[in-house]
Amino acid sequence: MRDLSRPQSLVAINTATVKQLTLREAVECLVAAGITGIAPWRDRIAECGVAEAARLLRGNGMRVTGLCRAGFFTGEGRAGLAAALDENHRALDEAAAIGAQSLVLVVGGLPAHSRDLAGAREIAAEGIAALLPHARQAGVTLALEPLHPMYAADRACLNTMKQANDLCDTLGAGVAIAVDLYHVWWDPDLEREIARAGRSPGRLLAFHLCDWLVPTTDLLLDRGMMGDGVIDIPRIRGWMEAAGYEGLLEVEIFSAGNWWRRPGEEVVRVALERIATVC
Amino acid sequence: MRDLSRPQSLVAINTATVKQLTLREAVECLVAAGITGIAPWRDRIAECGVAEAARLLRGNGMRVTGLCRAGFFTGEGRAGLAAALDENHRALDEAAAIGAQSLVLVVGGLPAHSRDLAGAREIAAEGIAALLPHARQAGVTLALEPLHPMYAADRACLNTMKQANDLCDTLGAGVAIAVDLYHVWWDPDLEREIARAGRSPGRLLAFHLCDWLVPTTDLLLDRGMMGDGVIDIPRIRGWMEAAGYEGLLEVEIFSAGNWWRRPGEEVVRVALERIATVC
Repeated sequence: MRDLSRPQSLVAINTATVKQLTLREAVECLVAAGITGIAPWRDRIAECGVAEAARLLRGNGMRVTGLCRAGFFTGEGRAGLAAALDENHRALDEAAAIGAQSLVLVVGGLPAHSRDLAGAREIAAEGIAALLPHARQAGVTLALEPLHPMYAADRACLNTMKQANDLCDTLGAGVAIAVDLYHVWWDPDLEREIARAGRSPGRLLAFHLCDWLVPTTDLLLDRGMMGDGVIDIPRIRGWMEAAGYEGLLEVEIFSAGNWWRRPGEEVVRVALERIATVC
Repeated sequence: MRDLSRPQSLVAINTATVKQLTLREAVECLVAAGITGIAPWRDRIAECGVAEAARLLRGNGMRVTGLCRAGFFTGEGRAGLAAALDENHRALDEAAAIGAQSLVLVVGGLPAHSRDLAGAREIAAEGIAALLPHARQAGVTLALEPLHPMYAADRACLNTMKQANDLCDTLGAGVAIAVDLYHVWWDPDLEREIARAGRSPGRLLAFHLCDWLVPTTDLLLDRGMMGDGVIDIPRIRGWMEAAGYEGLLEVEIFSAGNWWRRPGEEVVRVALERIATVC
């Protein structure tokens, strides 16, 4: 496994981790810490405009792992897919404009007033397939992010690495997977499905770090800093690297009660320390 | 599929659904509603004593689907397994004394101070195997209940029907599965794994009903009444019955903010209505 004792060059910070900062503040904070990897959210891009965001990121030599996030193909059912795709095409253009390696897709949960989970999964697959030609042409990979099963209803009906691998097998080049510890750590098939993904070059596109707290007090906004929870991060990182993953370690922590209340500089400093000591 | 227009004879009520009632009150409430299926929790048995509980249940002609709950093999790691088994043996004796069809096992999550989820799964399997001779001798089936992945750390490292089927295949007679909608509804492999379980006679031992609310405000105590959430209950019931399930439909709802605050009679009445209309 890679040596993480000086992790700056191997780390990306997802702007959701430092939600308290604007994009400019986040970039300045990362540059000061010696970090050049970043995954911005679209709301942070929108605040300053795409052109300014692109200048800011390029001018500071930032490597953009992914633009977060598009997808949400399913919310209005098949009848709403065209409108959802319009928004996804705009997100793809933004991702290309800021030089993002990928556009991260959270595919959406059940359509409004629907209980048809299998149907939602079909709509999501159709949406990704429909977006793919534009993504290939733009040179932006679509990063499928399986979300924890507790989000199946309201955020993503893509809930396991196996589903993501199956979709990638079906869709071919231009689609890959963002593996987020928070969502997949529990999966009995995780090691096998990471190895399976590794057999397709480039499919393991991103690796998101945080931790699962015990107790977890909120389904969405109570993620932990690496080391504060129960995920065996070195083991899963080992599986990723054994499968060929050489990309950045991206810190993505939603933490309304703790980390979002602290100065961004502190969050970034602690994240680096934890990557060096517990990951 | 079975006709649920007059569901009394097909229903069991888990006492956690009417947590506001003692065992005696719960039995009286069910008898008044024409329901003869019940799944008591051990705390309710302990309150009145096993002998009195057995008299109460038998005297009212109650069919006891399962005693809830034992397991928790993993909490103190392998070193604590013997002590955990002692408690499980006592629970088995209680289950036999009250004439329960099964002892429901929630296998436990990560051991204290451990991040070794695969190791926890091994300990759980050892615990079940060690309990099995006693269970066979007592004529009480061990009902493995896969719990939602959001409980992998703190309640059960058995998180999918596939894991449960694999364990049953390994362990042989005397072990079966309690399928709880809340825990498994999201699983892309659910239909296949229910069908797989159905190919082993008796393996589909129990079927627990509730619903997944959107939003869900608490990881443990915010389950919904059937029809108030997003689970396609008729579809999954269809899979169960197509796989040969002929047992009771057991209502198990943890609801600190809603159903636990209402009179038990109302909860049971609404549950029957919902089974007749939305399940």
